Amino acid sequence: MRNVNEDTITKIALAYHAHAEDPRFKQIMTGAIQHLHAFARDVALTEDELYQGIQFLTDVGHITDEKRQEFVLLSDALGLSMLVTALNNRKPAGCTESTVFGPFFVSNAPRYENGGDVANGAKGEPCFVSGRVMGLAGEPVPNAHIEVWQADSEGFYDIQHDGAESKARGSLRSLKDGSFHFRSITAESYPIPYDGPVGRMLKALGRHPWRPAHLHFMIEAPGYERLITHVFREGDRYLDSDAVFGVRSSLIADWKHHERGTAPDGTRVDTPFSTLDFNFVLNRAAAAVPHRSNAA
Amino acid sequence: MRNVNEDTITKIALAYHAHAEDPRFKQIMTGAIQHLHAFARDVALTEDELYQGIQFLTDVGHITDEKRQEFVLLSDALGLSMLVTALNNRKPAGCTESTVFGPFFVSNAPRYENGGDVANGAKGEPCFVSGRVMGLAGEPVPNAHIEVWQADSEGFYDIQHDGAESKARGSLRSLKDGSFHFRSITAESYPIPYDGPVGRMLKALGRHPWRPAHLHFMIEAPGYERLITHVFREGDRYLDSDAVFGVRSSLIADWKHHERGTAPDGTRVDTPFSTLDFNFVLNRAAAAVPHRSNAA
Repeated sequence: MRNVNEDTITKIALAYHAHAEDPRFKQIMTGAIQHLHAFARDVALTEDELYQGIQFLTDVGHITDEKRQEFVLLSDALGLSMLVTALNNRKPAGCTESTVFGPFFVSNAPRYENGGDVANGAKGEPCFVSGRVMGLAGEPVPNAHIEVWQADSEGFYDIQHDGAESKARGSLRSLKDGSFHFRSITAESYPIPYDGPVGRMLKALGRHPWRPAHLHFMIEAPGYERLITHVFREGDRYLDSDAVFGVRSSLIADWKHHERGTAPDGTRVDTPFSTLDFNFVLNRAAAAVPHRSNAA
Repeated sequence: MRNVNEDTITKIALAYHAHAEDPRFKQIMTGAIQHLHAFARDVALTEDELYQGIQFLTDVGHITDEKRQEFVLLSDALGLSMLVTALNNRKPAGCTESTVFGPFFVSNAPRYENGGDVANGAKGEPCFVSGRVMGLAGEPVPNAHIEVWQADSEGFYDIQHDGAESKARGSLRSLKDGSFHFRSITAESYPIPYDGPVGRMLKALGRHPWRPAHLHFMIEAPGYERLITHVFREGDRYLDSDAVFGVRSSLIADWKHHERGTAPDGTRVDTPFSTLDFNFVLNRAAAAVPHRSNAA
């Protein structure tokens, strides 16, 4: 090991952690070092470029705080988050597909009854959402815990605004027949935060920061796998170029436009509004989760 | 692009930046995305593991400030820095080899005349260093700009201590015959900072944080390539397990021990001291640097 050079260094680096206690951590770091070194060799990375990369990660670290997670944005923007979502959510046909979690979920969101208005004053056109939570055999899933969250018509989630009030996010429970319904606002396309290093990266790559309009759902019920997904809005101009690669055809739905009138829940609305009806099919949880085998 | 899944996402991600303006940046990001995705597939990365990785990078970002560069430490500890050094410093036989730059260089260090004491009060056994700067044909390189820096006997560089004074670092010029000499302190092995996330990573990998004793040199002269290297101390217990993979056999030298007596520069020393004599051979600068070709 006194003759470290470009040919020997990867083998030496892996030998250094031959005695790591946790075999899974060892496996992950082996893969990380192999691919990091292969990347540097493949692109013939220069010393200046390495320091530029280190400065970029430093900038990502320094803009990250309790409200902004630029590393999640980076993982999302490079397609890593969606890839990991796909790798870990292979499901039988018929189940609702998963998509990225994103950086804007907040735990302990306010609880609503069915029919409640989760918008809670968020800016946007009214939207009346309904659907059912079911299992693969079509059986209703009652009392499922449903979390919903979305951006407002200005393109911001509540936590991106000043102030602590929860808006356009909340949790509710499915009814006996698996159904749920609530009021919110119509989802609109919006850019991911692009005033930081990830935004500069997208610009240098000739990429835009936009996400197609979507409503986030996280649904949990005993005996079923947790589902993290979005519903996307048919017709959105960014469906084919989502900045974070989250779109799957099966998650695109028709959000019906109404000029004014009576909403499905009987509310009289004097402005334009939309309605969305979407059913979720949960995968049954494995009785005992088998240890994930290594595909490497 | 509405059917993003684990098989299609890499191709889609690369297509997104098909129109990046800077071809070199496009090439680097293509390699980065390909290897990042291949890593996630190879190790079958779980969603929890992705978030743990993001939390790790967040911690690395938050401990990094003007005096501490944890991303450089991370790059060093994973062998990336030494690999990039090796890739970019292929030289004719006979030239002094390069090694890692490290995170402890400071520009505008104090200037010394030959014979000066760059220790400037740093703790440690006195060491008298001498050598010559030469070209490949053995020709002396006069007036070369020489930067030296090192840790003290407690294992810390001056910038790791409180206080602004430069200690155990300085710059000087080679004389007409290419020779130089200065006084400093005897280099000792020391651990890289291990009280942060990189230290936790090393521990989990079963690795120690130690570097074998070394003295940093950066040498520049018109007509020659800049040389960034160390001289390592023969006999050090960490020569075969340098935490940052910097050791090359040709950079190991005998630091002679003396109980007391007259130093090579005539100084009378009443305590134990060491002497080091090491010559540096610079590579001639290319007349015009050719554009680096792509090895990918």
